[in-house]
Amino acid sequence: MKRNLNIRPMDFKNGIINLTHGSGGRASAQLIEALFAAAFDNEYLRQGNDQAVFPVSAGRMVVSTDAHVISPLFFPGGDIGSLSVHGTINDVAMSGATPLYLAASFILEEGFPLADLKRIVDSMARAARQAHVDIVTGDTKVVEKGKGDGVFITTTGIGVLPEGVDIRGDRAMVGDTVIVSGTIGDHGMAIMALRESLAFETSLVSDTAALHTLVAAMLKAVPDIHVLRDPTRGGLATTLNEIARQSKVGMMLNEAAIPVSPEVNAACELLGLDPLYAANEGKLVALCAEKDAERLLSAMRAHPNGANAAIIGRVIEDEHHFVQMKTAFGGTRIVDWLTGEQLPRIC
Amino acid sequence: MKRNLNIRPMDFKNGIINLTHGSGGRASAQLIEALFAAAFDNEYLRQGNDQAVFPVSAGRMVVSTDAHVISPLFFPGGDIGSLSVHGTINDVAMSGATPLYLAASFILEEGFPLADLKRIVDSMARAARQAHVDIVTGDTKVVEKGKGDGVFITTTGIGVLPEGVDIRGDRAMVGDTVIVSGTIGDHGMAIMALRESLAFETSLVSDTAALHTLVAAMLKAVPDIHVLRDPTRGGLATTLNEIARQSKVGMMLNEAAIPVSPEVNAACELLGLDPLYAANEGKLVALCAEKDAERLLSAMRAHPNGANAAIIGRVIEDEHHFVQMKTAFGGTRIVDWLTGEQLPRIC
Repeated sequence: MKRNLNIRPMDFKNGIINLTHGSGGRASAQLIEALFAAAFDNEYLRQGNDQAVFPVSAGRMVVSTDAHVISPLFFPGGDIGSLSVHGTINDVAMSGATPLYLAASFILEEGFPLADLKRIVDSMARAARQAHVDIVTGDTKVVEKGKGDGVFITTTGIGVLPEGVDIRGDRAMVGDTVIVSGTIGDHGMAIMALRESLAFETSLVSDTAALHTLVAAMLKAVPDIHVLRDPTRGGLATTLNEIARQSKVGMMLNEAAIPVSPEVNAACELLGLDPLYAANEGKLVALCAEKDAERLLSAMRAHPNGANAAIIGRVIEDEHHFVQMKTAFGGTRIVDWLTGEQLPRIC
Repeated sequence: MKRNLNIRPMDFKNGIINLTHGSGGRASAQLIEALFAAAFDNEYLRQGNDQAVFPVSAGRMVVSTDAHVISPLFFPGGDIGSLSVHGTINDVAMSGATPLYLAASFILEEGFPLADLKRIVDSMARAARQAHVDIVTGDTKVVEKGKGDGVFITTTGIGVLPEGVDIRGDRAMVGDTVIVSGTIGDHGMAIMALRESLAFETSLVSDTAALHTLVAAMLKAVPDIHVLRDPTRGGLATTLNEIARQSKVGMMLNEAAIPVSPEVNAACELLGLDPLYAANEGKLVALCAEKDAERLLSAMRAHPNGANAAIIGRVIEDEHHFVQMKTAFGGTRIVDWLTGEQLPRIC
């Protein structure tokens, strides 16, 4: 739809966001058309209404929402744009669902460079296209300088759940095998190294990635996966504690089996951090019956996002719902929830 | 689900938000359980996963998302909590759909009083219950003091579209009647008066309200409504210009017929503002064939949210897609888009 708003073209090189971009008037319309609609272009956005209409078949659907406030906005391996697409796709996918649509809402700070916004929006568009997901509707607000921090992005994802799939946080059963899809702590330590300006920061790269095709491959191999969850904020330790509590079970992990890259290990030692609590943005944990575990592991390793997948422990009976770990030194320790804030604004 | 997090109970009287509430660890879990899950309680939230699963029938669904950054957070007639529920319900309803589910994402500023947050969350819960809509999933992030402004809330709504309904911004036809559901400018001027500490501010009350039952009553009377839209940011003037542009038509309004309360008129005169550009949060504009207009108007007036509904103009042919208005003095003027920012952070 060609529209003439009779105002100056946007300056994506030197321009900045100002309060008129959030007014709902002419400047808002121009921002939406010249930036968002152009980058995300699809049949739903082209409807040009305040909502998107899409067809559904009878069955079950899934919805998930996530605000993204990561700082800094750009980091090795991604940016707030790709992260906001991957993060919500993954939350939808962790139910076993196929993500279909995203809604995106932006809170922009007055003075934010249009060039940075365009870079972020283009990155979102690329991530969505790669994942075969459409960004079908959105919203933009602008707050005064000092009342925000560049850009916050909330994405909401909608997906369809295949028949028969029943993946929930409360389905872990005693005897289940615990599998992680790859090395842990990559995202958290990449951000942390960047913030602390560590000398070796360039070797640390966020693992941000959409995991729904990995999940689809896993379900094909083992339809009865019990639990799936992506260990984001709070890291693997917190995610496993959540599952233990929801399922009223304990877990016994094997420290030596948990994959950690040498770079993440080095950064953690230097900063006094534990990779078990560092955020991941392209990893998942899966729990399934022991008899299915090797088949699931093979399917994961055959997928690019699961090449380093490993069996890291099993579900045990425990009325206290503790997650424990056999350490490399032969002892056993309790792996508690994250209690303080290790890494603020990590996603 | 009774869970024991082994930490101190939350202090909703004197406590404040700190960065640990956004860490994804124990404090985050406590905030979610003691505040959000308790207030919004429903079968979907009780699933306790990072996403909500819900059943659907074959047909068409609708999704809409809105970030809410209103300042101040509390105002006569509502607060950011009720507004964030009404605003998104209305965006879904403007397609003719029945809103069913909401997702809610919070960006909290470090230091924000828990008492205020609880008041806002309780208000959201009340608004959702009154509208028979469930808040089924959510997310909470915390940013450092000075990097946000108390609380921002993004809500995303999902609804189902009845068969045969076809309401779109590009369906206005020459000869159509333009109807507004009540007085305009109430929300915008209530916020503005509060900010400017006008002496008569107490008489100005936001019209924030959910409009989906009004829409249902309208569709029952006139199934073939052509266009529905809620004139929020940018006001009635901007909304009608959007529709004119989408539908490639012009409009001729009758100034004397546009309902404006005496209080809003007085505040607008004092502040030098035009009610046509002031935001509404509980009003809609409807366009339908002239033959259906009286029937639609009667249905609207019979509903509490449409008691002051009025026919305010008609759609005309105009290659420039101008919205024009016959003034009270007998002249004709062009009603342009909002160009500057009249009222920042109005929703």
